[in-house]
Amino acid sequence: MKAFMDKDFLLTTETAKKLYHTYAETTPILDYHCHLDPRDIAEDRHFDNIAQVWLGADHYKWRQMRSNGVPEKYITGDAPDREKFQKWAETLERAIGNPLYHWSHLELQRYFGYFGALNGDTAQEVWDICNEVLRRPETSARSLIKNSNVTLVCTTDDPADSLEWHEKIAADPAFDTQVLPAWRPDKAMSLEKADWPAYIEKLSAAAQMPIDSFAALVKALEKRADWFDAHGCRASDHGLAYVMYAPADEPVIEDIFARRLAGETITALEERQFKTAFMLAMGRIYHRLGWVMQLHYGVKRDLNSRIFAALGPDAGIDSIASAAPTDELAGFLDALDKTGELPKTIIYSLNPGDNAAIGTIIGCFQSDEAVGKIQQGSAWWFNDHKPGMIEQMTSLASLSLLGNFIGMLTDSRSFLSYTRHEYFRRNLCQLLGGWVENGEYPADEARLGALVQDICYRNAVRYFGFDLKV
Amino acid sequence: MKAFMDKDFLLTTETAKKLYHTYAETTPILDYHCHLDPRDIAEDRHFDNIAQVWLGADHYKWRQMRSNGVPEKYITGDAPDREKFQKWAETLERAIGNPLYHWSHLELQRYFGYFGALNGDTAQEVWDICNEVLRRPETSARSLIKNSNVTLVCTTDDPADSLEWHEKIAADPAFDTQVLPAWRPDKAMSLEKADWPAYIEKLSAAAQMPIDSFAALVKALEKRADWFDAHGCRASDHGLAYVMYAPADEPVIEDIFARRLAGETITALEERQFKTAFMLAMGRIYHRLGWVMQLHYGVKRDLNSRIFAALGPDAGIDSIASAAPTDELAGFLDALDKTGELPKTIIYSLNPGDNAAIGTIIGCFQSDEAVGKIQQGSAWWFNDHKPGMIEQMTSLASLSLLGNFIGMLTDSRSFLSYTRHEYFRRNLCQLLGGWVENGEYPADEARLGALVQDICYRNAVRYFGFDLKV
Amino acid sequence: MKAFMDKDFLLTTETAKKLYHTYAETTPILDYHCHLDPRDIAEDRHFDNIAQVWLGADHYKWRQMRSNGVPEKYITGDAPDREKFQKWAETLERAIGNPLYHWSHLELQRYFGYFGALNGDTAQEVWDICNEVLRRPETSARSLIKNSNVTLVCTTDDPADSLEWHEKIAADPAFDTQVLPAWRPDKAMSLEKADWPAYIEKLSAAAQMPIDSFAALVKALEKRADWFDAHGCRASDHGLAYVMYAPADEPVIEDIFARRLAGETITALEERQFKTAFMLAMGRIYHRLGWVMQLHYGVKRDLNSRIFAALGPDAGIDSIASAAPTDELAGFLDALDKTGELPKTIIYSLNPGDNAAIGTIIGCFQSDEAVGKIQQGSAWWFNDHKPGMIEQMTSLASLSLLGNFIGMLTDSRSFLSYTRHEYFRRNLCQLLGGWVENGEYPADEARLGALVQDICYRNAVRYFGFDLKV
Repeated sequence: MKAFMDKDFLLTTETAKKLYHTYAETTPILDYHCHLDPRDIAEDRHFDNIAQVWLGADHYKWRQMRSNGVPEKYITGDAPDREKFQKWAETLERAIGNPLYHWSHLELQRYFGYFGALNGDTAQEVWDICNEVLRRPETSARSLIKNSNVTLVCTTDDPADSLEWHEKIAADPAFDTQVLPAWRPDKAMSLEKADWPAYIEKLSAAAQMPIDSFAALVKALEKRADWFDAHGCRASDHGLAYVMYAPADEPVIEDIFARRLAGETITALEERQFKTAFMLAMGRIYHRLGWVMQLHYGVKRDLNSRIFAALGPDAGIDSIASAAPTDELAGFLDALDKTGELPKTIIYSLNPGDNAAIGTIIGCFQSDEAVGKIQQGSAWWFNDHKPGMIEQMTSLASLSLLGNFIGMLTDSRSFLSYTRHEYFRRNLCQLLGGWVENGEYPADEARLGALVQDICYRNAVRYFGFDLKV
Repeated sequence: MKAFMDKDFLLTTETAKKLYHTYAETTPILDYHCHLDPRDIAEDRHFDNIAQVWLGADHYKWRQMRSNGVPEKYITGDAPDREKFQKWAETLERAIGNPLYHWSHLELQRYFGYFGALNGDTAQEVWDICNEVLRRPETSARSLIKNSNVTLVCTTDDPADSLEWHEKIAADPAFDTQVLPAWRPDKAMSLEKADWPAYIEKLSAAAQMPIDSFAALVKALEKRADWFDAHGCRASDHGLAYVMYAPADEPVIEDIFARRLAGETITALEERQFKTAFMLAMGRIYHRLGWVMQLHYGVKRDLNSRIFAALGPDAGIDSIASAAPTDELAGFLDALDKTGELPKTIIYSLNPGDNAAIGTIIGCFQSDEAVGKIQQGSAWWFNDHKPGMIEQMTSLASLSLLGNFIGMLTDSRSFLSYTRHEYFRRNLCQLLGGWVENGEYPADEARLGALVQDICYRNAVRYFGFDLKV
Repeated sequence: MKAFMDKDFLLTTETAKKLYHTYAETTPILDYHCHLDPRDIAEDRHFDNIAQVWLGADHYKWRQMRSNGVPEKYITGDAPDREKFQKWAETLERAIGNPLYHWSHLELQRYFGYFGALNGDTAQEVWDICNEVLRRPETSARSLIKNSNVTLVCTTDDPADSLEWHEKIAADPAFDTQVLPAWRPDKAMSLEKADWPAYIEKLSAAAQMPIDSFAALVKALEKRADWFDAHGCRASDHGLAYVMYAPADEPVIEDIFARRLAGETITALEERQFKTAFMLAMGRIYHRLGWVMQLHYGVKRDLNSRIFAALGPDAGIDSIASAAPTDELAGFLDALDKTGELPKTIIYSLNPGDNAAIGTIIGCFQSDEAVGKIQQGSAWWFNDHKPGMIEQMTSLASLSLLGNFIGMLTDSRSFLSYTRHEYFRRNLCQLLGGWVENGEYPADEARLGALVQDICYRNAVRYFGFDLKV
C-alpha cells in the first residue's frame, strides 16, 4: 500500500516518478487563466484564518457542505469561522474520491506543513496550525505566489476596467511575478440582460467615445483591447452557454442593437444573431493582436432561484448544460478561418461528453500560424479531477498531439490553488509513465522530459507569446 | 491468476478484501426499489424449475438469447423448459464481460451451491442441481428473502392498488421482513394513451370520489397517497421519457384534462404541459408526506412493433433514449424548490452520458432538509454492471459526496436477485480499497468501514426514514 | 518495464499472451470494409518511397502535421518527398498516446523490419530502410496483401461502377485473395447536392434504363445490386449524418424526386423524407439478397471551407457530429423489421457517446435470421485506438454478446494497414485475458480460444456468408 499522499502521490511506476521528480516538480508555474483579484496582489493581502481563505468565496466547497445537509448559516451565513471550519472538516471526510479531498490536503501539506488527514476529530489541530502560519507577517498574497514558483499570472478582467491595479503591480520592483490582465467581454455581449444598457454606458465612459451602434460598440471594445494589449494582455475569455453560429447581415445586427438599447425586448433568434456578430468581431480583433481566444461553454448558471436570490452569482448553483451543437461551433470557427482571421483558440466544454467532438473539430482548423493553434482546454471546473484529467488527456492524445498541449491553469479565486498544477503534473507524469512502462512509447528520457516540461510550461509560454525564458 | 468467482471475486487489494469481508458482506440488505409481486410473498410462492425462475419474466435474458439467434419458441414460446434452459446455457457462455454472466453464477453459488461454470456442456448438471433445491419444501419466496438477509423491500404499486397483499404480509407474524408499497402513478399521468380514461375510472373507484377535473385527479391521488402512507410507503417512482418542464396556468391544464377525458386528442405541447403540472402536484404531495421522489428517465420503450404486438411491454425491446434536456430537469426541480416543496429526490438516467450533468445538477438543490437530499441513483438497468457501477460511483465521488450515497437496489422481478447487492458491494469495496491503497485516502479502518456500511445500508435507512435499526 | 512494442505489445497477462500468440496471431484476416482501389490490386501496384505510401492520401496523418504547425506545402503540397517525411517524423514523436504512433511502428516492424523509434533524428535511417524494401520487385500491392495473410477484402464501390477491375482480379489465377465489391449508393441518395442530377444520368447509363421517377431509381439500383451480387458482393455501406426516419407517402416522394430532378431546390424536411424512403428501399433490397447493411453516421464532413476549396473531400477536415436522435434510428429499423424486411445490419457512430445507446438498440431487433443479426460496428475512424476499442468492446460486452461480435476492419486506403487487425487482436486478447485473470470468466482455454478466433475471423465469415473455410 502506498502511504497517504506522500511524495509519490498518484505516481505508481518508476518512469512516472522519474518524470515527475526530475522534470515536472521544479518547473515554474504559468497560470494563464485565474480569477484572482489584482488588488489583493497589489496590496499584498493578509488573511485572518483558514476558514476565511478556504470558505470565503469557494463555491466548490459550499456545494459539498450543502450536500452534507449543513445549514446555510455555517456555509455562507454568520456562524463563527471556527464553527464553519468544523462543518467543512466533517464534510470533507465523507468526500472520498473527490478532488477537494486532494486539493485540501495538498494545500495543507505545501502551505501549512500539515501531513495528517483533516476530519471532524482533527479540525481543531488543523485550525491552530493553519492560523499560526497565516498570522505570520510574511504570509501574504505575494509570498504565496512567489513560494509557489509562479512566473506569470493572467487575471480575468472586464473591458471597462481601468487596469490600475495591474499598473501598480507592474510598477512595483519588489514583486517580479508578471500579473497580466485577460479580457472577458461577457457583459458587453449579454444584451438580453436587464443591466446591459447600463453596462454599455460604463464601457462608453471607459472608451471615451459614444456607443450608439453595433459598429461603435466594436470600435469602443477595440480601443479598450488596445489598452489591454499595451498592458501585456495576451488572452481573452468568453463564458458561453454554447458556441453559437447564426450569421446575419450588418443592418439586421444594427437594428437589434438599436432596439435593445432603446429598452425593447429581443427574440431568442435575435440574441443568437447579435452574439454571433459580437463573437466574430471579437475574433477578428484577437487575430490582429495575436491574442488567444478562450471559449468556455456548456454551462447552465444560477439554476436555483432561492439561493440565487439570496447570494447572487457564483454561489455553487451551476451545472453542466447538455446542448452544444457541434455544427455551430464548427461554423463559427470556419467563418473566421475562411477570411484568415481565426485567432489562436482554446476550447473548453463543461460537458465531458464533448471531449471527443472537440478533439476532432480542433484538428480541422490547425495551421502553420502556430504550433497547436487550436487547443482543447484542460479539464475544466467540474471535470478538474483525476479521472477528468486522465479522460481529457487520453482523448486529446488519441485525437491530436498531446506533445503540443498547453496544459494546466487554476481558474481559481484562491492564492492556495497552485497545488492544482502539482496535481495536474502528477496525473500527466503518471499517464505518460504508464504508457512508457507498457511499451507504448520508447523509454527515451530526453524526449519524455522535454515533453513533460513542454506541457507543464514551455508550450504555454510560446503559445501565448509571453516574455518569459523557456 | 485469481480463481473463477471465488470469495474474493472482484477484490484485488488487501484493503478491498478487508472492507468487503469485515464490513459489507454481513450487513443486511435494504431493497428500496424492486418489482416483486407482493402476492408471491404473501402466498410464499414455490417454483417448479430453474427455467421458470430464470426465464419466466427476465427480459434481460430474453434479449441475449435473441442476440444469439435463438428462435422465439425457446425464449418466450412453448418449447419445453429443459430445452429453453439449454438455449440459455449456450447463450451465456458467449456472454463474456456481461453482467448476466456474473449474476447467473452468483445466483448458482449462493442459492444452489453450484460453483462451476454454466455452459452448453454443463446445462444438464446445473438443471438437476437447481431443481433439486427448488423442489425442497423450504425453498420459497420468503426463504429466499430471509436467507439473503433482507430487512425491508419496497415493491412498485399503482395508486389504485388495494394493498391487500401488503396488509396480509404485515399481519403475518411468521415473516418479519418489511414489505412496503411504493407509489408509481405512471398510468394516471399517461393521458396520451388510449386506456387513460378507463384508468381514471378505476382510480376514481379506488379513491371513492369522482374525477372530473385535474384538481379532482390530484385530490384523488392525494387520498390514495395517504392510504399508501398509512401502509408504510416512503417512496414514489416515475418512469419518464425525460424530466419535462413546460409550465402552464391552471385553466390550461384543466382544459387539456377535460378535452382528453372527453376522448379528444391532445398535442405534444399539451401533453408536456399536463405532465409538468402532474409532476409538480405529485412533488408537493411527496414533500408533505416526507416521501422520496424517484425519477427514472432516458428510456425509449417497446420499440420493436413486431415483438410488442406479440408479447406486450417488458419484452426486452427497450433502449436508451438520447434526448434529456438538462434545463428542463433543472427547471422542474427549481419550480418545487422555490416554494420550499422539493421532496427528497433520486435521479436515474438510463443514458450513462448523463452521469456528469446529473452529478452537477443535484449539487444545486441540496439543503439541510436531509443529508444528501438530492441523490444520483445507482447505475440503472442497462448500466447495472461492473463498468457502469464504477463509472457512476467515480462520477458521483468526483462531483458530490460518495459517503452520503444511498447505494444499491435490485429493480428486479426475481427472488434470486439479492446477489446484485453483493455484486455492488464488491465493486464499492474494490473502488474504495483501490483509492486507499493508492494513497488517495487515509487507511483509517474505522472511517472506511463506516463509509462502507453507510453506503450499503445505513444511509438508505436514514434517508427514507424506515423503521429499522442502524 | 515492458520493452518498446515487442512481441507482447499491449499484452500484460499470461492469459492475454497465450490467447494472442496461440489463437489470434496466426488466424487469417478478413477485411470486410476498406477503401482500397481495386485497380491497384489488379495492376499489382508498386510504390516509389515511404512518403508516397504514408502521406499520399492519409488524412489522419495530414491532420497531425497541421496540428504540429507544419506548412501545407510539406503536407499536401509540392515539397520534396524526403522533406515531407522529415516533417512527419518530427510530428510523430510528439504524438505520444496516439494510434498513429502505434500503427506507424507496427508497419515499420512488420513490413520493413525496422524495430526502432521513428523521430526527427532517425528519419533518414528509416527513409533508407523503407525505400530499399519498396524498391524490391517483389514488394507490391498483392504481396503486401498476401504476406498479411488476408483471405478476403471488400472494397467500397459506387453502384454505377462497372466492376471491371474486380472481374480482372477474379479472373487472375495468380492471386487467390478474394477481392469483392461492396455497395455504397451515397451519391444516389444525396439529392441535395448540385451534381445529383448528373449522377442520376450516369446511373441510368450503367443500369441501361431511364430514371425518371423514384420508383425507376429504385429499380435501376436493384438491377445494379443484382450485378454486384453476381460479383460476390455481400455488403452495402452508407455514410450518413445520422440515421433518419421521416416517413412519407409514395406520391410525396415522387413529387420531391420530380421537382429536384427538374433542378428545383427542396426543403430540409423533403430531404429527410426522400432519404428515409431511399434507405427503406435499399434495406428491402439488401434483405432480399441476404446482404449486410452498414450504417456509418455521426460525421460532419468538410467543415473547413478554406482547405475544402483547395483539396476537396477526404482532406482531414471532418469531425464528430453530436446530433443523432435514437428514436429515428429505432424507427427506421422498426419500419423494416415489422414487414420482415430488416437485413443484417451493422451500426457505427463516430460519436463514442452513442456506444451505450447503440448497444441497447441492437438488442431490440435481434432475431433467429442470423446469429448476432444486428451488430455494433468496431470502434470507427476517430475511435480506432486502444481506449476507443476497449470502450466499444466493454460496452458491447456489457450490453450484448461479445462472443458474436464480427470484429475488425481497416476502413483504410493503404496496403500497409493490416497491422490494425493485429492492433485490434492484441487489445481483444488483453481485454479477455484480463477478465479471466481477474476471475470474471473461467480459464477454459478451449472456449476462450474459440471466442478469440470467432471474433477475429469466423464470426464475420459466417455473418456475411463468404465462401471461406471456417
